[in-house]
Amino acid sequence: MKRRDFLKVTGASLAASTAVAAPAIAQSSPEIKWRYATSWPKSLDTLYGGCEYFCKQVAAITDNKFQIQPFAAGEIVPGLQVLDAVSNGTVEIGNTALYYYWGKNPAFTFATALPFGLNTRQQISWLLWGGGQELVNDLLKEYNVYGIPTGSTGAQMGGWFRKEIKSIDDLKGLKMRIGGFAGTILAKLGCVPQQLAGGDIYPALEKGTIDAAEWVGPYDDEKLGFAKVAKYYYYPGWWEGTSQGHNIMNIEKWNSLPKHYQAAIDAASRDTFTWITGKYDAVNAPALKRLIVGGAILKAFPQEVLEACYNASNEIYADLSKTNPHFGKMLASMNAFKNDSLPWTQVAELSFDGFMARMRAKT
Amino acid sequence: MKRRDFLKVTGASLAASTAVAAPAIAQSSPEIKWRYATSWPKSLDTLYGGCEYFCKQVAAITDNKFQIQPFAAGEIVPGLQVLDAVSNGTVEIGNTALYYYWGKNPAFTFATALPFGLNTRQQISWLLWGGGQELVNDLLKEYNVYGIPTGSTGAQMGGWFRKEIKSIDDLKGLKMRIGGFAGTILAKLGCVPQQLAGGDIYPALEKGTIDAAEWVGPYDDEKLGFAKVAKYYYYPGWWEGTSQGHNIMNIEKWNSLPKHYQAAIDAASRDTFTWITGKYDAVNAPALKRLIVGGAILKAFPQEVLEACYNASNEIYADLSKTNPHFGKMLASMNAFKNDSLPWTQVAELSFDGFMARMRAKT
Repeated sequence: MKRRDFLKVTGASLAASTAVAAPAIAQSSPEIKWRYATSWPKSLDTLYGGCEYFCKQVAAITDNKFQIQPFAAGEIVPGLQVLDAVSNGTVEIGNTALYYYWGKNPAFTFATALPFGLNTRQQISWLLWGGGQELVNDLLKEYNVYGIPTGSTGAQMGGWFRKEIKSIDDLKGLKMRIGGFAGTILAKLGCVPQQLAGGDIYPALEKGTIDAAEWVGPYDDEKLGFAKVAKYYYYPGWWEGTSQGHNIMNIEKWNSLPKHYQAAIDAASRDTFTWITGKYDAVNAPALKRLIVGGAILKAFPQEVLEACYNASNEIYADLSKTNPHFGKMLASMNAFKNDSLPWTQVAELSFDGFMARMRAKT
Repeated sequence: MKRRDFLKVTGASLAASTAVAAPAIAQSSPEIKWRYATSWPKSLDTLYGGCEYFCKQVAAITDNKFQIQPFAAGEIVPGLQVLDAVSNGTVEIGNTALYYYWGKNPAFTFATALPFGLNTRQQISWLLWGGGQELVNDLLKEYNVYGIPTGSTGAQMGGWFRKEIKSIDDLKGLKMRIGGFAGTILAKLGCVPQQLAGGDIYPALEKGTIDAAEWVGPYDDEKLGFAKVAKYYYYPGWWEGTSQGHNIMNIEKWNSLPKHYQAAIDAASRDTFTWITGKYDAVNAPALKRLIVGGAILKAFPQEVLEACYNASNEIYADLSKTNPHFGKMLASMNAFKNDSLPWTQVAELSFDGFMARMRAKT
């Protein structure tokens, strides 16, 4: 055989073997890299940490073939533009709290936390089993996006106040840093909601430019040192009985994935529920203790104040339902779920939790 | 080129290509089939359904290469022998409530639900973030087994009683079907615990062979029709403020898996948390409503009865801690977690839940 022939034959058979082997690898487990824009600064190490965990899990499951790289808020796009970045394909995937986009459509609020809505377990149950996530995805489809729930912060705190809140009159003229849709409810009661990034809250409270601020809960709040400048720490954060995160994927990018990479994202997304929610439950508890030792004064919002906010919320919801079909459908679905769920929560869960709280107080 | 040469060269190059391609496939994603013994009859469609879901997810993320086949209780081994079957390698993997094995070691109770222990979120948080699962795995190692938490039933009900429980005297001589370790606590108060399989409970209650029986919660209890023969439906199930399931793997079988198949089991196990717990939260609520319409009379255990059981439990725990190192370590770890966690749960979560319950009662 001549060298020329050898090369020719070898070339042909290599091509043939490539045709058999390479596509089998390429089709089944291609190497894919995605960019993951998140709404979280790295200092929110439970929310951002949950995103890092998600990426680690997807890589581990796919034998490191599918690499998703997380970016903190501002690294690719600002934290409140994650939906846009996924929608227009700047990134393939994002992690965010969808209620940030209530300005586009207030129905996004249902995906994360409706004020006076569901608690953490009720919210994830409604999303996965009560038809909630399908309604959220009907809305996301208008933005070319598909979503899967990830973790929740749990019930948040009502925030830090320079003065006590004794009646609804104390809300009038109160300048409060509060994110999102809940501000419109407080505004109805005379409060003046302010939008401030995390790092700007402390100096504003210190100077008295604002009178109050909500952030997340004990663990995240502690790092920003609010207790030194606004010592009354109120609960509950009625606008966030939970705060449920979502992974959101650009629909074309999602559809281009092999089915088992889609499945990896699917399983790893919900895997982060116990990572994030479990971590918040573990770290908030000792942080609350430290905050109280450090001078924070725990206060419950008076029933009168909560009821006024509750009624104002329901009026706003009724109005929005008339003009916004997404909002109307989600409100009806969530209310039906809640009406069944509240008595059940009260019977087994709250009676157990209540007894344990009473026995702790006794000892 | 002669035909003989052609074949020779082609053969050589095919062998070369096989040497490159085939092992890459064989090593990275071998076809593996495992058998999955569960402790659940198919009628417990949330617990067994969660196991089916887990298998579906593992198959989906491994491109159907790793097939785990679920078996109901009794199909391979009885429901209470899943740990043994995994331990001795009869099956590679199982799903069970580890407190079933309290007879081998009462410390197994901590893995699932310690009476007057943690609620559902606290339990999964303690396991994943409070060092609990490491302690559970230290114990499982003695049985050649490695465990990962799956889903929880949520807080269970206190069960069905033919007569009202008005004081601790009413527990004396009461024949109650109750599973596991909680029976030893009730026995300390004069109750006579009985072990009966699910299908035998209804006739025993009907004939009066037993006076009371606990099973799970509204959704599972409803199917067995207890309301017809024991109308008082008590809460809370203080012995199960949660009931946390586990996947358990034979350690040699686990170690023989490719790393990314281990990762698939890892992620899909915790993925079932929101599947199972979310489903229970969704289906228990309307089932409770139907049970009440059907004649069940909801009753809270009197504070006096709960306190007597609480004190009896703590005495038993103190005794066991003296002689059982696993029990002692787990009790110290869980109590430390609980002491921080209870005030935090009370502040944000219970104040939110309590307000929502009050407003529902008002409207």
